[in-house]
Amino acid sequence: MQPILSAEELDAFLQKEFPQAEGYTVASVAPGEAVLRLEAGEKHLRPGGTVSGPSLFALADVAAYIAILAHIGPVALAVTTNLTINFLRKPEPGRLDGRARILKLGRRLAVVDVAITHAGDPTVLAHAVATYSIPPR
Amino acid sequence: MQPILSAEELDAFLQKEFPQAEGYTVASVAPGEAVLRLEAGEKHLRPGGTVSGPSLFALADVAAYIAILAHIGPVALAVTTNLTINFLRKPEPGRLDGRARILKLGRRLAVVDVAITHAGDPTVLAHAVATYSIPPR
Amino acid sequence: MQPILSAEELDAFLQKEFPQAEGYTVASVAPGEAVLRLEAGEKHLRPGGTVSGPSLFALADVAAYIAILAHIGPVALAVTTNLTINFLRKPEPGRLDGRARILKLGRRLAVVDVAITHAGDPTVLAHAVATYSIPPR
Amino acid sequence: MQPILSAEELDAFLQKEFPQAEGYTVASVAPGEAVLRLEAGEKHLRPGGTVSGPSLFALADVAAYIAILAHIGPVALAVTTNLTINFLRKPEPGRLDGRARILKLGRRLAVVDVAITHAGDPTVLAHAVATYSIPPR
Repeated sequence: MQPILSAEELDAFLQKEFPQAEGYTVASVAPGEAVLRLEAGEKHLRPGGTVSGPSLFALADVAAYIAILAHIGPVALAVTTNLTINFLRKPEPGRLDGRARILKLGRRLAVVDVAITHAGDPTVLAHAVATYSIPPR
Repeated sequence: MQPILSAEELDAFLQKEFPQAEGYTVASVAPGEAVLRLEAGEKHLRPGGTVSGPSLFALADVAAYIAILAHIGPVALAVTTNLTINFLRKPEPGRLDGRARILKLGRRLAVVDVAITHAGDPTVLAHAVATYSIPPR
Repeated sequence: MQPILSAEELDAFLQKEFPQAEGYTVASVAPGEAVLRLEAGEKHLRPGGTVSGPSLFALADVAAYIAILAHIGPVALAVTTNLTINFLRKPEPGRLDGRARILKLGRRLAVVDVAITHAGDPTVLAHAVATYSIPPR
Repeated sequence: MQPILSAEELDAFLQKEFPQAEGYTVASVAPGEAVLRLEAGEKHLRPGGTVSGPSLFALADVAAYIAILAHIGPVALAVTTNLTINFLRKPEPGRLDGRARILKLGRRLAVVDVAITHAGDPTVLAHAVATYSIPPR
């Protein structure tokens, strides 16, 4: 499974198409994988000062989406059909990485595993598995 | 299972403690249930004009939280440990209801089922099941 | 959403095609719903004498399958792609009902909610949400 | 995270306490991990000749359980509270490995990721994430 778009191309696509993805950047792409980075600041926190659930959900969801687009191209209109997320540890603000690994890239469905960590620290803070429906190509 | 807080009390708690929950209000509370309402406007949309995944996730997550607090009181520091969401239909903006029904309210864990619909329309747009960890009381 | 097969027709199909479904019978069918019943005996128990996880999984999975077939007919080769199950209470052996309600029946995907109870008792013992992939018709 | 039981000790425990786990053996244990093996024969198949959903569910569930016991000892009465499984490819019968990696081992909850493959082949056939409730120690 070889990516057909670079991290730079995916990031340009993300910034252009999803202006709400402020703070999220595509950090890297590799065969079957992509890493999305979130600089978690004030607007991503919840009371108590840890990163909010919706911000972690968005990091996992968009990381999976970017991993899929990296391998099928930006024309595809893939949509999330299912996402399961486990919140394991309360994440302090800072640089969070969502590492998305493709478990299956079929004609109709893609399933992606996402581990969220602080950049440079292997401890998994949250873990998600997402299913995307892929339109006929 | 009888609620011990009213919708008004829960809404006051939500607005005070979660200033980020702008647009969300507690609509009703009943034995084992609560309804959280989202007036989905511009900031809750994604490209294409339908309500975004993170906004639906937040509606499901907070609806489950409110249903639990309604029955154990606002002192408890419950945290989401697991949430599975299925996106069934693309939701147009407008008034969205997250109807949370408690499946289990144990000493340590609560499990809540949430159906998201347009207010007054039974068609389920998204469906979630959330598990909350409840601290020792 | 109207069923096109009766409980008797679905049960005959189940017994013929799934000889391993011993102990499972189709109890009823209604618009958007089906109930599968398990007479949980010795072979469905785990150490401690409660009904085993795999038996509850099978009850939820097959109940969802039967609800879908009830509405699209037995020719379809639907396969489970995703199932999330929450175990809420330890189920004593006896007559268990898996009540499957269709949340979405699309052209490609069906999503079904299943509540497992003792027959005649509303307490939910386990709850599942299953996604099935439906082949082109 | 260091295991305190060997694969042999865990296998002896499994065979003694779970006589229904026929065909399942503990293949290996490592820090944070365990591999459970299923020799999938006639009784584990479904119509069409591929390994059945309940057999894959049991492989994932027991693999997670074994990984936890390997690190906390066999006295603990851990129970599954939640399991999400994605079926990715139809598994032919033969030797199946469920590789369980602990994502979190807390005082009250453990979360475990399980990848099911054919022994010696990295292709993931099914993937699960399980949450176990751990009784007070």
